[in-house]
Amino acid sequence: MAASRNGSKSISLVYAAPPASLFPVDAFRRAVDFVLKRRLPEIARLGPAEGLPSLRLEVARMLAQIGITASDDNIVITNGCQQSLDLLRRVLVKPGNTIVLENPTYPGAVGALSPTSLGLHELPILAEGPDLRAIATAASGNRPKLVYVSPNFHNPTGYTMPADARRQLMTLTGQMGIPVIEDDVFGPLRYDGAAVPSLQSLSPHLVIYIGSFSKILSPGLRLGWIVAPRPVVEQVILSKQAADAHSSLLLQVAMDEFCKRDIIHRHLKKVRKVFRNRRDAMAEALRKHFPSDATWPLPEGGLSLWVTLTPDWNTEDLSVAAKERGVQFLPGSLFYFRSARRHAMRLSFATEDEPDIRTGIRILGETIEQMRPKLFALGQEARERTLAVV
Amino acid sequence: MAASRNGSKSISLVYAAPPASLFPVDAFRRAVDFVLKRRLPEIARLGPAEGLPSLRLEVARMLAQIGITASDDNIVITNGCQQSLDLLRRVLVKPGNTIVLENPTYPGAVGALSPTSLGLHELPILAEGPDLRAIATAASGNRPKLVYVSPNFHNPTGYTMPADARRQLMTLTGQMGIPVIEDDVFGPLRYDGAAVPSLQSLSPHLVIYIGSFSKILSPGLRLGWIVAPRPVVEQVILSKQAADAHSSLLLQVAMDEFCKRDIIHRHLKKVRKVFRNRRDAMAEALRKHFPSDATWPLPEGGLSLWVTLTPDWNTEDLSVAAKERGVQFLPGSLFYFRSARRHAMRLSFATEDEPDIRTGIRILGETIEQMRPKLFALGQEARERTLAVV
Repeated sequence: MAASRNGSKSISLVYAAPPASLFPVDAFRRAVDFVLKRRLPEIARLGPAEGLPSLRLEVARMLAQIGITASDDNIVITNGCQQSLDLLRRVLVKPGNTIVLENPTYPGAVGALSPTSLGLHELPILAEGPDLRAIATAASGNRPKLVYVSPNFHNPTGYTMPADARRQLMTLTGQMGIPVIEDDVFGPLRYDGAAVPSLQSLSPHLVIYIGSFSKILSPGLRLGWIVAPRPVVEQVILSKQAADAHSSLLLQVAMDEFCKRDIIHRHLKKVRKVFRNRRDAMAEALRKHFPSDATWPLPEGGLSLWVTLTPDWNTEDLSVAAKERGVQFLPGSLFYFRSARRHAMRLSFATEDEPDIRTGIRILGETIEQMRPKLFALGQEARERTLAVV
Repeated sequence: MAASRNGSKSISLVYAAPPASLFPVDAFRRAVDFVLKRRLPEIARLGPAEGLPSLRLEVARMLAQIGITASDDNIVITNGCQQSLDLLRRVLVKPGNTIVLENPTYPGAVGALSPTSLGLHELPILAEGPDLRAIATAASGNRPKLVYVSPNFHNPTGYTMPADARRQLMTLTGQMGIPVIEDDVFGPLRYDGAAVPSLQSLSPHLVIYIGSFSKILSPGLRLGWIVAPRPVVEQVILSKQAADAHSSLLLQVAMDEFCKRDIIHRHLKKVRKVFRNRRDAMAEALRKHFPSDATWPLPEGGLSLWVTLTPDWNTEDLSVAAKERGVQFLPGSLFYFRSARRHAMRLSFATEDEPDIRTGIRILGETIEQMRPKLFALGQEARERTLAVV
């Protein structure tokens, strides 16, 4: 909870990333101090574009713990997932190419993969998995060059793609020879349920897997990785060289040391517990304070709940009213690149503690209750206007 | 001097960047430790794409000391000059556009500004300044969209563009409305002679000025800046957002603290003295050990000498022979994007101390003496072969 300008408290359900209060600052300070004292020659020089060899080994070791098998030769260190997507566009997408991605999705992916917002095909997410007919349909015209999906705790919906759907997706894209980017930035944050096989483990020759320290540790670090078949890796290294030479060696050596000391492993165990409790506190408060016709699937991991109100609602208006009462969240419409639905909202439980999450959801529930009569009046008015026009 | 694989020492005249031994490690450790202790909330979060406001102010203050007047609103923090050029290409260059740049030049600039190596026009460097007819000629066909130059201690030649030539360049590009990128990465490393007015100070509305901490402090940090007119800055911020969200906040806050403590200023004073002595040691050794028909202008700053042998020489062959004797340098041909001259070489004095620089130049001089008879025999043979073919 942060003090707002007028002195009252404000509660943010906006950021799906760990807050500074959970950053393992003492362990990180010791790691940074150690590397500046003992590993300076590795830091104060030009480095390899693909990243520090020892960090690539540590990332491979960390990934093995969540079921991703990768050799260090298949890993490129980047400045986080945003850069990973930017580099992959350079390598895989040419002007005029089409790509298929979930809708809604992470808006930064749309910006990185298609700066002009052209050539985007929608992959609808159904309860049983993505609607693969969309890929076949897209292919009947201009064959897509890329599929981008987030199978674990999808941002913003929290949806996890079932194992069968993953196999079908990989069978289809395998037959068509379309590479698939698997964005697993939230993957290490699983709180319950059994792990589902990664796309990368199903088709290591077709899948480009991306992840980062942003959701595990902090988004301000800007350090991530691409895991890909060697021919893609070789192209990505050239792109990385042209893009910014290499990621900062101070960060790379510090994170290498941090991983070597197994702090990342202990930290993950700790934050998974914290975030699970926050998720449960939010779900419980939603049951208590939100209208009974609002729906939200409980995600098995990640940092947000995706709440859908009845179609009369416009969560952009709701977010304005809620902000006046000191609670902030992101309206669902921000996450669609096409046909935005206005009655959904993303509520992140990453940054506030349990009491503030409960207070925030209570205030949101009250705001909804107070807007409801006005909404229905407006709805009635709109319907009347529509009738008059028709 | 580093131990080579066979146990003997090897001397590197390759890197035009400060070595780890000159890195102000204690002051930097204190700054990093302080910011992790006291400024964590600024680090462990998502940051603004344009860079940390306080660091932009510090960069403005530092630039004022070398005659660049810029408001923080005109500054974008990047991951160093390589990324600055990559972002500027996205904003300023479209497929099919042509650009004008010095030849030879920094090869990374060619890679960033024209990934396909298409549309490059050569700006020849004459003693009195760049041959501006090249810009007029280029414009008579496909009008260039960009001029890229390094007026201070140009890499690789060490050449400094005279004040009159700068004014003429800015008059011409001003009349034609062509934006100019001024790469001043070596600018703060001036050892003698009076400062020449920057292009940015002559035409702040047309010039995009780039610099970084790479040559001042260390290339491994990856932190730099773009200074540009506000309309360009706004476009660069959008590109930076799509490219990698923002530069690492740990680095930005650490460098902000480092600048606030005025360590950068004291460090610059110290390294200027060290590098001037190394430059002078190299020049003296060249006079003593190199053939009298070799030429090298003495640069007033920067980190390299550009040595030209007689046209019979191929410095690629010389670099192979020298490496066998434990001395490494870069053949001049690497720096040309067209019509490479093979008898020049870049000798950097950044990373070795004065005794090793003297030893390295002595060994190079001996290698040249030993290759000379063979060279002339080969030259003779080549001429005979040529005659036979003709």
